[in-house]
Amino acid sequence: MEKIKVSIIGATGYSGKELIRILLKHPRIKLMHLVSASYVGQNICEVYPEFTNQLDKKLIELDIEKIVRDSDVVFTALPHNISLDIVPELLINKNQMKVIDLSADFRLKDSDNYTKWYKKEHSEKSRVFLKEAVYGLPELYKEDIKKATLVANPGCYPTSAILGMAPLLARRLVEADNIIIDAKSGTSGAGRKLSLGLHFSECNESFKAYKTTMHNHIPEIEQELSLLYNPDSGKDEGEKNKYGKKNKEIIVSFTPHLLPLSRGILSTCYLNLIEDCNEQDIVTLYQNFYQDAPFVRIFEPPNLPEIRFAQLTNYCDIGFTIDKRVGKIKVISVIDNLTKGASGQAVQNMNIMFNLPETMGLL
Amino acid sequence: MEKIKVSIIGATGYSGKELIRILLKHPRIKLMHLVSASYVGQNICEVYPEFTNQLDKKLIELDIEKIVRDSDVVFTALPHNISLDIVPELLINKNQMKVIDLSADFRLKDSDNYTKWYKKEHSEKSRVFLKEAVYGLPELYKEDIKKATLVANPGCYPTSAILGMAPLLARRLVEADNIIIDAKSGTSGAGRKLSLGLHFSECNESFKAYKTTMHNHIPEIEQELSLLYNPDSGKDEGEKNKYGKKNKEIIVSFTPHLLPLSRGILSTCYLNLIEDCNEQDIVTLYQNFYQDAPFVRIFEPPNLPEIRFAQLTNYCDIGFTIDKRVGKIKVISVIDNLTKGASGQAVQNMNIMFNLPETMGLL
Amino acid sequence: MEKIKVSIIGATGYSGKELIRILLKHPRIKLMHLVSASYVGQNICEVYPEFTNQLDKKLIELDIEKIVRDSDVVFTALPHNISLDIVPELLINKNQMKVIDLSADFRLKDSDNYTKWYKKEHSEKSRVFLKEAVYGLPELYKEDIKKATLVANPGCYPTSAILGMAPLLARRLVEADNIIIDAKSGTSGAGRKLSLGLHFSECNESFKAYKTTMHNHIPEIEQELSLLYNPDSGKDEGEKNKYGKKNKEIIVSFTPHLLPLSRGILSTCYLNLIEDCNEQDIVTLYQNFYQDAPFVRIFEPPNLPEIRFAQLTNYCDIGFTIDKRVGKIKVISVIDNLTKGASGQAVQNMNIMFNLPETMGLL
Amino acid sequence: MEKIKVSIIGATGYSGKELIRILLKHPRIKLMHLVSASYVGQNICEVYPEFTNQLDKKLIELDIEKIVRDSDVVFTALPHNISLDIVPELLINKNQMKVIDLSADFRLKDSDNYTKWYKKEHSEKSRVFLKEAVYGLPELYKEDIKKATLVANPGCYPTSAILGMAPLLARRLVEADNIIIDAKSGTSGAGRKLSLGLHFSECNESFKAYKTTMHNHIPEIEQELSLLYNPDSGKDEGEKNKYGKKNKEIIVSFTPHLLPLSRGILSTCYLNLIEDCNEQDIVTLYQNFYQDAPFVRIFEPPNLPEIRFAQLTNYCDIGFTIDKRVGKIKVISVIDNLTKGASGQAVQNMNIMFNLPETMGLL
Repeated sequence: MEKIKVSIIGATGYSGKELIRILLKHPRIKLMHLVSASYVGQNICEVYPEFTNQLDKKLIELDIEKIVRDSDVVFTALPHNISLDIVPELLINKNQMKVIDLSADFRLKDSDNYTKWYKKEHSEKSRVFLKEAVYGLPELYKEDIKKATLVANPGCYPTSAILGMAPLLARRLVEADNIIIDAKSGTSGAGRKLSLGLHFSECNESFKAYKTTMHNHIPEIEQELSLLYNPDSGKDEGEKNKYGKKNKEIIVSFTPHLLPLSRGILSTCYLNLIEDCNEQDIVTLYQNFYQDAPFVRIFEPPNLPEIRFAQLTNYCDIGFTIDKRVGKIKVISVIDNLTKGASGQAVQNMNIMFNLPETMGLL
Repeated sequence: MEKIKVSIIGATGYSGKELIRILLKHPRIKLMHLVSASYVGQNICEVYPEFTNQLDKKLIELDIEKIVRDSDVVFTALPHNISLDIVPELLINKNQMKVIDLSADFRLKDSDNYTKWYKKEHSEKSRVFLKEAVYGLPELYKEDIKKATLVANPGCYPTSAILGMAPLLARRLVEADNIIIDAKSGTSGAGRKLSLGLHFSECNESFKAYKTTMHNHIPEIEQELSLLYNPDSGKDEGEKNKYGKKNKEIIVSFTPHLLPLSRGILSTCYLNLIEDCNEQDIVTLYQNFYQDAPFVRIFEPPNLPEIRFAQLTNYCDIGFTIDKRVGKIKVISVIDNLTKGASGQAVQNMNIMFNLPETMGLL
Repeated sequence: MEKIKVSIIGATGYSGKELIRILLKHPRIKLMHLVSASYVGQNICEVYPEFTNQLDKKLIELDIEKIVRDSDVVFTALPHNISLDIVPELLINKNQMKVIDLSADFRLKDSDNYTKWYKKEHSEKSRVFLKEAVYGLPELYKEDIKKATLVANPGCYPTSAILGMAPLLARRLVEADNIIIDAKSGTSGAGRKLSLGLHFSECNESFKAYKTTMHNHIPEIEQELSLLYNPDSGKDEGEKNKYGKKNKEIIVSFTPHLLPLSRGILSTCYLNLIEDCNEQDIVTLYQNFYQDAPFVRIFEPPNLPEIRFAQLTNYCDIGFTIDKRVGKIKVISVIDNLTKGASGQAVQNMNIMFNLPETMGLL
Repeated sequence: MEKIKVSIIGATGYSGKELIRILLKHPRIKLMHLVSASYVGQNICEVYPEFTNQLDKKLIELDIEKIVRDSDVVFTALPHNISLDIVPELLINKNQMKVIDLSADFRLKDSDNYTKWYKKEHSEKSRVFLKEAVYGLPELYKEDIKKATLVANPGCYPTSAILGMAPLLARRLVEADNIIIDAKSGTSGAGRKLSLGLHFSECNESFKAYKTTMHNHIPEIEQELSLLYNPDSGKDEGEKNKYGKKNKEIIVSFTPHLLPLSRGILSTCYLNLIEDCNEQDIVTLYQNFYQDAPFVRIFEPPNLPEIRFAQLTNYCDIGFTIDKRVGKIKVISVIDNLTKGASGQAVQNMNIMFNLPETMGLL
């Protein structure tokens, strides 16, 4: 069977490395080009000796023409504000090639919102592709992903938060207000760029909150939770929807924290239950909602997920507790930030786009 | 000047060890007896080699008479449900000796509440001492502690949560509802008793929530926050207080998590602001509230405390963020769970009880 | 193609768990029975939630007859002194079934040596199987393993030490004396059994040497290094061998240390060079020696292996430095103690015994 | 009593920070100037928030005149090659001020040796001070330190290695050859300067050897061990000394490794015993040798030091094992690299130089 030709732009960052790690075990792909701005000319094994004996390939500089010619799909694992300019170049010729972009640049449907949070404007070119980009959360948009040319792969925090709360919001079992997401991430989420806060002696044996109001994963979470809460999203806010209730934009309180470990996110989400549910109701709700989602695992009370269970896997592990004393449900949602939170999910999207089994190379 | 004679019952648990560590540097005390159920007859340096050259003392079994005879103050660093029976024995003869109890047994003023959360009844004897016990949070009860014979030293989570939110509740700047405490603790908080969850390979590089509804630090937090919120606590709930508002019991949503590090607690507290405050208002509020509290450090925005800043100190570091988008204030409160969260606070209480400078031996 | 039926005795220890983790991705096996003394009747996912959605199987108690009937190969992942009695029961009927024993019980060819280090005598029964057991280090004994019924899978420290030094001893480039192995292992090497030394708060942020003279991996290392050094091992010590030199038993100084991390061993081996070699000579020697060893990776100076490169892989990564000032060569040999140091190597042995590609399921 | 006026040049590196941490608790000093190249004008609490409420002082740029005028002693905590030029400026006016230099620049008595290992030449000026510099290891040179104007504070690895082996070499109980030092250090030893190797995700859960032949702490170790071994060091190598043996320069094999923890060094030293000693002989030897050394703690077999016992203390903990099978003694020597390995030892030296109790501020 013919193999899918894959290239990676941004191959030496942690998401790029994780893509390589996963793709090396994928039976239906062929790695073509690895692009790196920082290590052009070096072998990938010089940058990541763990790939020794497994991959022998030189890092090249960005050459759009070559990449388009040789690839069926390109993963762009670049910082935000950069993909914006490169993705249109890759797709402009409409030659059947597909792009899975791991940055934030094509995730927000409202380009003004993007500008507000990411301090850069979409160009005319990129705006075209923004319109056809599909938000790459397979548990919500599998059908759209199948047909997509450009997938905007979700952020790590949003993946854990949205999957953790989606069933509750889609069924309106919770208030739209007072949603709190207290998220904790390992250090690899901050990437490979050196900074004092990630210097071993500065974060080892410590823990802190950071970007406590303006983390740029917020708009992505709110966009998707609002879409779930308001199934008739075409209507104006204020009109009644199929629940006979008004549409309501979801605004969340989101606080990220830095864990002294390498990989994993655990989000603790607090929501006000509006109905008197018991644990079994919630378990059933989640199981039904995710019945076609091979990478979501529901933990039944009193079991709860822990970061180590999901580490180095593409699972999103979800558990919950009903806190009757305060009328709240606490949802615990765990992923590996580099796998389900980035590169594993990207490969899951690739599988769907190319009509392969969704879990191929990921179990 | 004469030294204060100090004994420790429960000297080989982590709180006992931390008491020793601190007291070794205290210029006005003399260590008398170290009681340990597990290591009777061994030298403390056999159990904790770090004390070699600093302390040469055998661990003895519990002998109430001897301890009472030789001590001005006794620290009881025992599991809860045990202090209940031992503290009355120590105090029964009213011989001027004082007790600082690090367990939960004398923290809850309502003995039924104690029974509900700790599954044991106060005896007639212990009930007598419960009535005169003072909750040992010096930032709130310094005057009472001065005169106390029995101090109930606060729990680690409650210390961080109560100090973090006290000014907001005392001034009623926040709603009484929707208070969320998302707390994260290092492993030493769980003590020295072996368990699979604390086996290195099982918690290293991981993170989890635990006891998500019924952690027994909850009633202590709620008791103290309610007292702060309702300054006329003698009145029945429902009557109007000095604010012209009804008294209202505070109920919180509390979720503890286990961090892969040894020492430290960071609590992220979420509260709904009822007034439109700016950051400077809050800073001033906290600075005034804690003007006589040498161990509270207020971090002004955008600075926030991190666990490492407070490690091995008796400080409680407090910072906050106003999240205007959702009308909430997020308070970050950090302590070392063994120091300010247990033994350092106990020594602070001792200093106050014996009319020594509050910070002696603790800076 | 028919699948190989595999059972595991001792499935819930860390080696057992690692066997499951690896075998779940092995395309040619079928997991039959999982035996556990501690968790009979529970599902493996209750013990290890990370296997949720991947394996649904109850743990059973030891039933030799059932296991023999249903298995082509059995992995015994038991503490030493236990395999001794169980392995003969499994093999006694000579029904073609094979056993790969992960304990030390069949590694030492000299049963007196076993008794000396492991404080137990081989029974008459086990002595029979000891004679036909093959030491399961594929890089040295691949041909014997192919034909073996019983493979004694090497210990973790010995795997790293022997592979690290084998070429030097086999070619007699180094003195037989003054061989020092300074080894450092992660905590999983000590297993899942609770002990104070593995309690998180006791080993986190710390490091220590342990069992500094009598670690029972020593005789295994010395047996194999002696066999390498003395290619005519049938001859008495004292007679001249094919090098025209006398046979000489290798005795090593071995010191294990405990690293505050979960997985991985790094052994630093010091040997006195007897010839004036340059780095390229040594690289060539190692590359030739391991030319048929797909899991050995040679790092050329100045590159050196690090634990993270080999983590969760079946590789043994070897690097070295020639220290001309003192006439020594320092060899750094790294493995994952649970993979190449235990279960990965066991699967590698299984592949060889069943005539499958050596790397199947292991890359 | 008048306080000693202290300034620190290089106050914001880890050694500078550790000096501040220690000096804050020292009853007889007054902190005058904190010099920092990187943070001029900022308050030390902006750089290290842990000092909040404890120290309120602005960082200034280097002003030799001001520092000399206001200080009784200056700690220079600078990178090597820098102290070389600054120390002479500080001392040139012979105004009674003393300098304790934490760099390597004045440790090696032979300036050619310095140039060989540190790639820089001593100037004529610095050569003058090199001659009168005292190597600041109080356990060996207390009398000289008392009278010194310039103390060259030892390196962290050398402190652990020299103290660990000094009694054996001074009494010639071991061979001069085949001395191996396998040393393991926490990350703070590498300082605060950002580098990929110290990025949390790159060294967490890992372990590696580095600078395996040319670490520049080697000449310092060899200088001091040679002086211990050859008590008549004035004589030429080759002449017989008081033992009736020839002088012999000590050359060691030294291999540093990086531990995934913040603070601490454990050195495992291997030496060939030339006499048949028993454990008690060695214990007695060490106890006698260090009878006036308040910061050396001897662990009697089978007890061994661990990094955590010495963390945040000025102790050097030493234990050993006699490995009779190979005729070697293994010495385990542990320090906190920032305390006894740098700033604690510097304060110990200050105490000695100013005729204060050696342990003041350090227990």
